[in-house]
Amino acid sequence: LRPILPLLALLAACSTKPPIAELSTQVAIERTTAADWRRLDPADTLYMDVNGGTVVIELAPHFSRAHVDNIRTLVREGFFDGTSVNRVQENYVVQWGDATEKKPLGAAQATLPLGAEVDAKGLDFAALPYRDAYAPEVGFVHGFPAARDRKADKAWAAHCYGAVGVGRGESPDSGSGAELYTVIGHAPRHLDRNYAVVGRIVQGMELLTTLPRGTGQLGFYERAEERVPIKRVRLGADVPEAERLNVEIMRTDTPAFAAYADARANRARDGFLVSMGGVDVCNIRVPMRPVEAR
Amino acid sequence: LRPILPLLALLAACSTKPPIAELSTQVAIERTTAADWRRLDPADTLYMDVNGGTVVIELAPHFSRAHVDNIRTLVREGFFDGTSVNRVQENYVVQWGDATEKKPLGAAQATLPLGAEVDAKGLDFAALPYRDAYAPEVGFVHGFPAARDRKADKAWAAHCYGAVGVGRGESPDSGSGAELYTVIGHAPRHLDRNYAVVGRIVQGMELLTTLPRGTGQLGFYERAEERVPIKRVRLGADVPEAERLNVEIMRTDTPAFAAYADARANRARDGFLVSMGGVDVCNIRVPMRPVEAR
Repeated sequence: LRPILPLLALLAACSTKPPIAELSTQVAIERTTAADWRRLDPADTLYMDVNGGTVVIELAPHFSRAHVDNIRTLVREGFFDGTSVNRVQENYVVQWGDATEKKPLGAAQATLPLGAEVDAKGLDFAALPYRDAYAPEVGFVHGFPAARDRKADKAWAAHCYGAVGVGRGESPDSGSGAELYTVIGHAPRHLDRNYAVVGRIVQGMELLTTLPRGTGQLGFYERAEERVPIKRVRLGADVPEAERLNVEIMRTDTPAFAAYADARANRARDGFLVSMGGVDVCNIRVPMRPVEAR
Repeated sequence: LRPILPLLALLAACSTKPPIAELSTQVAIERTTAADWRRLDPADTLYMDVNGGTVVIELAPHFSRAHVDNIRTLVREGFFDGTSVNRVQENYVVQWGDATEKKPLGAAQATLPLGAEVDAKGLDFAALPYRDAYAPEVGFVHGFPAARDRKADKAWAAHCYGAVGVGRGESPDSGSGAELYTVIGHAPRHLDRNYAVVGRIVQGMELLTTLPRGTGQLGFYERAEERVPIKRVRLGADVPEAERLNVEIMRTDTPAFAAYADARANRARDGFLVSMGGVDVCNIRVPMRPVEAR
């Protein structure tokens, strides 16, 4: 489904006088039907036990299939069990994985092509009418905030708060997924197209954002004992059903989601005095709700 | 001074093919002269002792003179001494001040007009050529990221990471500065024009961002003992010179700053594979450097 953009959202992109959204964000969510929601796919979900809790990551196979496959292999081999959070840089990123960079990768690839962009043609890109500082066009792809350049026939996931990416060295093909990072500050969108986004954190961000900032260069912990142990990382499919996160996530390719985005862009019905008449794609937070276990 | 915008930055705004900046960010900083920097003004600086350290806040009198004056009065009366951080909401704000909302305000005003916008005419607004999701135009005013709507003759400070604003109730004129907040996640720019920005944190963000998230509604701490004590807040002018933060901040109204912003928008010279050809005003982090005490 392509979103049918509300008329007011289109006006918002063209006028300096901010219009009023048709709905408040709350009502936009209440008016959805069951078909506007989806469950997390256990095959595309990671559970990372760290800092006394569990960080839940939704993987992004539509953006970097090869990296996501490699990360699944690493996870199933137990590669991340006993690794650590090694870097916490204020207003930028938390990075984790094998600090030694020597742990055997088993059946996983040691390096992969960059994978930071995909062909735009054929991609289920649900465009939104909002301006963006970085890209000609923004929207969502299967729940992930994204951008597109139709002239270049490229699309990519946006480095929004909570995006998970593949760390690498100077060479574009030097990342394996053995070191991952997430964004903990204002979206560093200059990383877009330069680093592969492979997921987003859907629960447990506070377990990472509250960690002590590293005092070394780039926020690396200077002493090995400062590193924060990662007890284990499991693929959702390998987590007992009773332990899984039972949530539904709003689909991002529906008219209901476009109406919700419009409400986020024009917040007068949410009690704001002035509607800004636009919204940063990173601020269209995808709604999530608890559901019964299957 | 108005910035003389580099030709490449102008091209960046009009072309989908990202150009290469003239300079790397590092070289743009190195090429500055002494006149491109300014010291923090002790009359416009707050020192807040909290969580084992000191948060340093630069005030924004150009945006909300009445609020800044009122906050200076509160600070000099010792109003904030013994108050607390009361709310920490993930990817949104940290809020502090008088949790009881009953502490006497002394000579300070109990309420003030909203003060979230100023007249654009006559304001020293250094415009930049980058697109913005929220406003027709962005730039800087005396070191603060800002936006402008020339048709409406209004300008306002942007709610970027580290911006400090005035908490208030439903009524626009219900804020006194007795409760303040700062942004700890992706810029919630829908607060622009709705809440008065009165400053920005220039040092010590990590003392606030690492605090435990509140488990109550809107991230408020549920029990009084969870609140994080604020030992004291002092105006820079009242802080002994030996204890002051000795830094220079890059001026934002110079050609040197425009060249730096251009480097942030087009990062190929910083080692990135793809220059995004634009930058979010909240990601043009204003450089700061240590200097000798006077």
